Amino acid sequence: MDITRINSLSYEDFVHVLDNVVENCPVITAAVWSMRPFASLAALEAAVTDFIEALPEQGKEGILRCHPDLAGRDLRNGTLTRESLEEQAGAGLDAAELSHMARLNGEYKERFGFPFVICARMNDKEAILRQLSRRLAHGCAEERASAIEEVKKICRLRLRSLVLPDPPNKL
Amino acid sequence: MDITRINSLSYEDFVHVLDNVVENCPVITAAVWSMRPFASLAALEAAVTDFIEALPEQGKEGILRCHPDLAGRDLRNGTLTRESLEEQAGAGLDAAELSHMARLNGEYKERFGFPFVICARMNDKEAILRQLSRRLAHGCAEERASAIEEVKKICRLRLRSLVLPDPPNKL
Repeated sequence: MDITRINSLSYEDFVHVLDNVVENCPVITAAVWSMRPFASLAALEAAVTDFIEALPEQGKEGILRCHPDLAGRDLRNGTLTRESLEEQAGAGLDAAELSHMARLNGEYKERFGFPFVICARMNDKEAILRQLSRRLAHGCAEERASAIEEVKKICRLRLRSLVLPDPPNKL
Repeated sequence: MDITRINSLSYEDFVHVLDNVVENCPVITAAVWSMRPFASLAALEAAVTDFIEALPEQGKEGILRCHPDLAGRDLRNGTLTRESLEEQAGAGLDAAELSHMARLNGEYKERFGFPFVICARMNDKEAILRQLSRRLAHGCAEERASAIEEVKKICRLRLRSLVLPDPPNKL
């Protein structure tokens, strides 16, 4: 679907097509419909990420809390969203690594009050574990900002899997 | 569950218990966890409604777009949330009234870009149809504000069905 077709959608179809570009937050997609028409895929991406950035800090923490634990209960129980399942599948952690990840993620949630979020498609399992250890040492505001940057990366990749690329003159 | 117990919940349990106090917007519940502890149920209600009020106008429109049509497709298809089903069931519209409602709601969505939201528990079917006709004549900003006030009423009633009332000295 190209951006012209996206711009022509009713709010109901727009939310249906793009509901999970921010994990478990269809209200963000629904909000962004107000900003149409979008000149390009890049403009749509910017509308979503600007909306997230403008939220109060509690709102950003709320977004993070709507994400599943990486390699956590939702993966084991088969209750991940389709998008998260595809993203996490690529990381390929073995049992010992899963157990290590679960322990670090528990510490992380205890410390920050939200789960560790990382763009799994842009990191292999070694990088994920290294980042998790490193980010555990962050201050709270610094870590919230880091985590929201990962949300934006995940969002851009999800949008690019749903909307056709802009022609060269739009980039 | 009383407010002391609510205050003791992890973010995961808090979101699980209160996820749909704003229809299809668990991110709002998740955001409000940041504001705990709550001195009372009234303080929790205020935290949710203040968070909604502080959102940019597109965010408020996003919340409205996460609501089902009243007496619409989700009711016919059995895909309403449990909370909405219980609320809409009380209105008791017959076939002719449902058809009238659907036509007016179509006009309303065309005009405002979100569905007609009303606290069904506080209105009988005559009042709902009367309000729908009346609110169709609103300007856009005025109607967005009216609809958000209904969201807050629905939210307060849902919270009161989940959290025990404050003792008299907390009111």
